[in-house]
Amino acid sequence: MRIGVVGAGALGLYYGALLQRAGHDLHFLLRRDYQAICQNGLHVRSPRGDFFLRHVQGYRSTTEIGSVELVLIGLKTYANKHLVELVEPLVGPHTLLLTLQNGLGNEELLAETFDAERVLGGVAFLCCNRGKPGTVHHLDQGAVRLAEFRGGLSERLIRIADLFHQAGIPCEACADLQKIRWEKLVWNIPFNGLCALTGLSTDRLLACPETRQLIRLMMSEVIKTANLQRLDSLIDTEAFIEKMLRVTEEMGGYQPSMMIDRLEGQPLELEAIYGQPLARAADAGVAMPEIAMLYALLTVTERNNQNI
Amino acid sequence: MRIGVVGAGALGLYYGALLQRAGHDLHFLLRRDYQAICQNGLHVRSPRGDFFLRHVQGYRSTTEIGSVELVLIGLKTYANKHLVELVEPLVGPHTLLLTLQNGLGNEELLAETFDAERVLGGVAFLCCNRGKPGTVHHLDQGAVRLAEFRGGLSERLIRIADLFHQAGIPCEACADLQKIRWEKLVWNIPFNGLCALTGLSTDRLLACPETRQLIRLMMSEVIKTANLQRLDSLIDTEAFIEKMLRVTEEMGGYQPSMMIDRLEGQPLELEAIYGQPLARAADAGVAMPEIAMLYALLTVTERNNQNI
Repeated sequence: MRIGVVGAGALGLYYGALLQRAGHDLHFLLRRDYQAICQNGLHVRSPRGDFFLRHVQGYRSTTEIGSVELVLIGLKTYANKHLVELVEPLVGPHTLLLTLQNGLGNEELLAETFDAERVLGGVAFLCCNRGKPGTVHHLDQGAVRLAEFRGGLSERLIRIADLFHQAGIPCEACADLQKIRWEKLVWNIPFNGLCALTGLSTDRLLACPETRQLIRLMMSEVIKTANLQRLDSLIDTEAFIEKMLRVTEEMGGYQPSMMIDRLEGQPLELEAIYGQPLARAADAGVAMPEIAMLYALLTVTERNNQNI
Repeated sequence: MRIGVVGAGALGLYYGALLQRAGHDLHFLLRRDYQAICQNGLHVRSPRGDFFLRHVQGYRSTTEIGSVELVLIGLKTYANKHLVELVEPLVGPHTLLLTLQNGLGNEELLAETFDAERVLGGVAFLCCNRGKPGTVHHLDQGAVRLAEFRGGLSERLIRIADLFHQAGIPCEACADLQKIRWEKLVWNIPFNGLCALTGLSTDRLLACPETRQLIRLMMSEVIKTANLQRLDSLIDTEAFIEKMLRVTEEMGGYQPSMMIDRLEGQPLELEAIYGQPLARAADAGVAMPEIAMLYALLTVTERNNQNI
């Protein structure tokens, strides 16, 4: 399959590399890693086995790529104002658009411009960082859950999930995009922001009874809002929180992507992970005071870090 | 009057210096500044006029001071486990104990050990920092409000307020200690913790609409709890918040004491400023979710900074 990757950060490079290794025809839009990858190839370091792709088709612009069958989108959501112009040159009559970006609002943005029928969404549970240019470090996990923007288990959805699976990416086709997005937010909303704000990794926050309780509280607020979004089936609050805490404890001293963005002086994905969910909660009449406060604190630090 | 100063940080040194300049017999318990002050005197820099005290009676221990008529307490509340042993040698039959420490619980601690009848409390609105040893920098403000722990406008309270006033310290004798403590907390609770947590001064927090709104919300929660403490008269929520915001804006880019403690790697006064007020709110049945969250975040960062 001819696949274009837009937003070739750690996630885009890692999944793209696995798909290319499985025999697909990959085309990466690159920025930081352009020269290193085009000249010397792409190294993937992973506990599941390192591998190296000598020849990688990298581009400075998506107009050089032309139309593809599948666009894999891993762009940071703070760059979404460029998303439409980046994706447009890749779109032919039968192109599918799959966004694995964080938070809410990404499928809607694509659907508004390119026809909702093309749009798929997904969430990735992936611990992965970029190393020096030309190297991506896969640390742990990597499963993906995919869904149709319009909902339901379509044949093409199952085909793409199978294509991921064949490439070594654990992948599940799901009928309810909203549900998988909100389930991911139950983790992202407390951990991304609290780790970015305090500079502490997930294990430190869970080891302190006061912040552990705060995390539980935030998770329960997210689930309360999620369960008012007309999901196919409700999320079981207590069981899901216990599962999230257990999974996070198994991850050890993990630094979520927003914490890494902050440490690297990058912008934060505040609108997708906080702004949009808070707006949905307000629409649903759910108070999320701790999450609103976290959003405010991230906003003020963001604004002042950028001004320094 | 023979006066002992316990906790000669910026506040204790500044008020003590003014009282000595006015002719009183001051005795300072010193630690960091002992050598500098005993050898070279105490310099006060102030927009109201610099002055210098060549001879200052400084001590390493309060047992060397013996009993005094008034003990002025400016100790950081995180050192309160040492308060009783520090004060004990200063107490004679008629000694009064005046604590100007932050937060709640300080008068109670003194009253439990030394007889409630001796205890006075007060709040200081003072922008003041220590400079190099032997120098204290008064930046702005400096007014004090005093009250009897037992309540009411006693003759001795008015006499001490007058003594402060004569020394150049704007001072008001108040009938209701709880009210002046809670009114101070309306400022301390949002600004001390938010500035310490974010590393941003008061003007930055007020300039961002999201945190300005958060500060208003925290202030209204504190006032709600305060107004359930059987005060002599209720605090007018809206008017008081407006006044606090206006006063803070006039202070410019102010760094509250807790922010300075954090920047200097000192412990934070969390129990007096957050733990005790949160316990009172719980007793009164008032939810203070944002303040509880701030306390949790300060606690986890404190615990981890101290462990590094």
